[in-house]
Amino acid sequence: MASESESIRASLATANRILAHEGVLDAFGHVSIRHPHDPARFFLARSLAPELVTADDVLEFDLNSQPVEPCSVALYSERVIHGGIYQARPDVNAICHHHASSILPFCLAALELRVVTQLGATIGTRVPMWDQRDEFGATNHLVVRADEATSLAKCLGNASIVLMKRHGATVVGADLRELVFRCIYSCRDADLQLRGLAYGAIDSFTDKEIELAAKFPDATLTRAWNYWCSRLQSKES
Amino acid sequence: MASESESIRASLATANRILAHEGVLDAFGHVSIRHPHDPARFFLARSLAPELVTADDVLEFDLNSQPVEPCSVALYSERVIHGGIYQARPDVNAICHHHASSILPFCLAALELRVVTQLGATIGTRVPMWDQRDEFGATNHLVVRADEATSLAKCLGNASIVLMKRHGATVVGADLRELVFRCIYSCRDADLQLRGLAYGAIDSFTDKEIELAAKFPDATLTRAWNYWCSRLQSKES
Amino acid sequence: MASESESIRASLATANRILAHEGVLDAFGHVSIRHPHDPARFFLARSLAPELVTADDVLEFDLNSQPVEPCSVALYSERVIHGGIYQARPDVNAICHHHASSILPFCLAALELRVVTQLGATIGTRVPMWDQRDEFGATNHLVVRADEATSLAKCLGNASIVLMKRHGATVVGADLRELVFRCIYSCRDADLQLRGLAYGAIDSFTDKEIELAAKFPDATLTRAWNYWCSRLQSKES
Amino acid sequence: MASESESIRASLATANRILAHEGVLDAFGHVSIRHPHDPARFFLARSLAPELVTADDVLEFDLNSQPVEPCSVALYSERVIHGGIYQARPDVNAICHHHASSILPFCLAALELRVVTQLGATIGTRVPMWDQRDEFGATNHLVVRADEATSLAKCLGNASIVLMKRHGATVVGADLRELVFRCIYSCRDADLQLRGLAYGAIDSFTDKEIELAAKFPDATLTRAWNYWCSRLQSKES
Repeated sequence: MASESESIRASLATANRILAHEGVLDAFGHVSIRHPHDPARFFLARSLAPELVTADDVLEFDLNSQPVEPCSVALYSERVIHGGIYQARPDVNAICHHHASSILPFCLAALELRVVTQLGATIGTRVPMWDQRDEFGATNHLVVRADEATSLAKCLGNASIVLMKRHGATVVGADLRELVFRCIYSCRDADLQLRGLAYGAIDSFTDKEIELAAKFPDATLTRAWNYWCSRLQSKES
Repeated sequence: MASESESIRASLATANRILAHEGVLDAFGHVSIRHPHDPARFFLARSLAPELVTADDVLEFDLNSQPVEPCSVALYSERVIHGGIYQARPDVNAICHHHASSILPFCLAALELRVVTQLGATIGTRVPMWDQRDEFGATNHLVVRADEATSLAKCLGNASIVLMKRHGATVVGADLRELVFRCIYSCRDADLQLRGLAYGAIDSFTDKEIELAAKFPDATLTRAWNYWCSRLQSKES
Repeated sequence: MASESESIRASLATANRILAHEGVLDAFGHVSIRHPHDPARFFLARSLAPELVTADDVLEFDLNSQPVEPCSVALYSERVIHGGIYQARPDVNAICHHHASSILPFCLAALELRVVTQLGATIGTRVPMWDQRDEFGATNHLVVRADEATSLAKCLGNASIVLMKRHGATVVGADLRELVFRCIYSCRDADLQLRGLAYGAIDSFTDKEIELAAKFPDATLTRAWNYWCSRLQSKES
Repeated sequence: MASESESIRASLATANRILAHEGVLDAFGHVSIRHPHDPARFFLARSLAPELVTADDVLEFDLNSQPVEPCSVALYSERVIHGGIYQARPDVNAICHHHASSILPFCLAALELRVVTQLGATIGTRVPMWDQRDEFGATNHLVVRADEATSLAKCLGNASIVLMKRHGATVVGADLRELVFRCIYSCRDADLQLRGLAYGAIDSFTDKEIELAAKFPDATLTRAWNYWCSRLQSKES
């Protein structure tokens, strides 16, 4: 199974670098993928800026977000987000936690993230907001304890994105391509909303329209993935 | 005629990559050109991000937007936009459908796209707005059926640009250079309007001034085209 | 004198490319320099996007904005701006006409371009606004006739920048380095004003402070010029 | 000690270029570091755009901001800012003076720079505002005299950042990495505030939360520093 594991690590590294290159991640934020054969494990990089992640930086974790094999490298302090959500959501196989500047205004001002274009339907009909303050009082706003992660996962519920007050967002997907697509197009739809809202009220999709639009054919995700890979290769070569 | 066909495909590929590089297109959107000798046919790429389109990716379609030769590659689901407009507008020889972030605020907020600078006169005196909801109720907001394309073409009428509510824009031109110019400078004029409107009411051209300004000499289009080609070459080399 | 002329043409080409690279010019706009020994002549490129201008593209013009030697290449249609201002302002030895997106909001909305930072003092205490409509009624908004240029020069008066309603700006300098500095830092100060004005009233310099701040030492202009040259070289190499 | 001195100069040059590459500095602004063994001396580049600074451009100054060894190169006119603050703040070992466009709106409009995200806690609980006008009347807004620097240092007090009305900001750190981190993440938090404030009131951290969040583990600063170094290397190679 070594080669399949290698392939997963390489895909995860590519996803890290795509999300950095497309402006979702910067020095911080992280992406994980659930083990395809052992749902009680997931892959995540060691503590490293996503743009720098290669296959060799990817480690295996259990659902308590502990590394499966002892290691001496620094780990992401917020890795419990991943374990907590994989525990609560068997349908989720890929997770990204980020602080994109497109999303942050929704975490600071009284704004509701909605769907305003066809591809934005990946956001879904409902975007819950989690405020660490509600349950945990004054904190440093890092999600580092199991109970904090459980609280976040509970707030996410069956949604695809949970916003985090004064912090960022956590996005989930059925697989890595859906996750990357959702991260990038939720940021793009958020940007479009912000651009429009500067001039007054804006129009948005109805729940029925979101449901119809969100059934993206595989060709759509493939076209976008190939485009992002190509842009990344141009940059890296 | 093989070499002329090759030249058309190459020009269309260049237009795709220029419009991607100048920020009109991203992973989605598409550009077509009518066959110079057979007005019942047009050229359009297979389903592919515009930045990646080469001459070899360009296929020939009839005005029902069906490929002239059987093919097994994925096609743009919204290609009916092109066939529908070529049917309705004999004077149109090039079409671009896009979702540029400069234009989207006009498709979301209660804003009117006008002409505010000399080059922006390419927009024309009237920019109709098409809302798929009006005639087709709740949809996924993709234009994939012949009657949807006919409706869009009817709304376009004799204008140069039709905005699409919660979706994007479709732009037409007498030839490929005019189309590319119109796409880029309508986006630029839209951006300038948005920048100005953030500070209150803005000034704009009168219909008479638009008429006078829109007669661009060939040198203007050539200067711009050479500039975009040069920028593209710098990027690709 | 051939080698001095070569040197002037090279400097002018560099200024064109710096102003394009720093976002003041795009496919359009142009820069000129007065002949150092014959004040009745000036240098300006043939019609070409500024980013593409090389020394070989630079031609010599008289103050009627006619080429000194017959030529068959396309010329900038708005070159009369340069001749008109060189006639009216003996102290001016370099001119740039541009449509930078930092400045355009001031040409569209009811905004006054002021000085808000030390380097912005290059703008001066007064920025007149010229509206082609006032004297010439409905036009295509291109300045192509001698009387239009004379009107613009009259509006400029002894200022350093004249804004042009629904059009752009024309900037003058005692020499090429001052001109480039003024173009770039007026755009930057304009951008800062726009950023601030989005949140209410902003502070600005008094006339006395502008006078004190505008006496830039040569080291300031040299530091900036070397920086822009270095950035241009990085991009072009 | 020659090799340690070389290492400091190289680090300072890297910090200059990182801050330029990340958009904190442009042609202007400067960064210094206190001598590790002689607190009465500091290192600062000769007058040069930060993006161009190499180890060879770094000079040694005393706390009157005079070069320790006679030199004939041009010096930053505002270097007294550094000497003035090193005199007043023994805990400070690195200083940056900048005019970043993220910060300037706070120096122009009636806005208060606060902490809105975890990493933004580097800003601290209080950001004083210094207005050169208050004590010195009409000036060119350059800080070039000892008494002006003393006044600025007094206003800074024990804070980490002092805003300068109509001018920019001066940022201090316990070491060079903390300084670079503080410069970049204060700009980023400022940007996020501006983005959010465009849509009404925004949320922010309490003093207690700032205190908890500001204790960044070394891994956080290292991850960010390595990321910025890597981005700089990509650009420079």
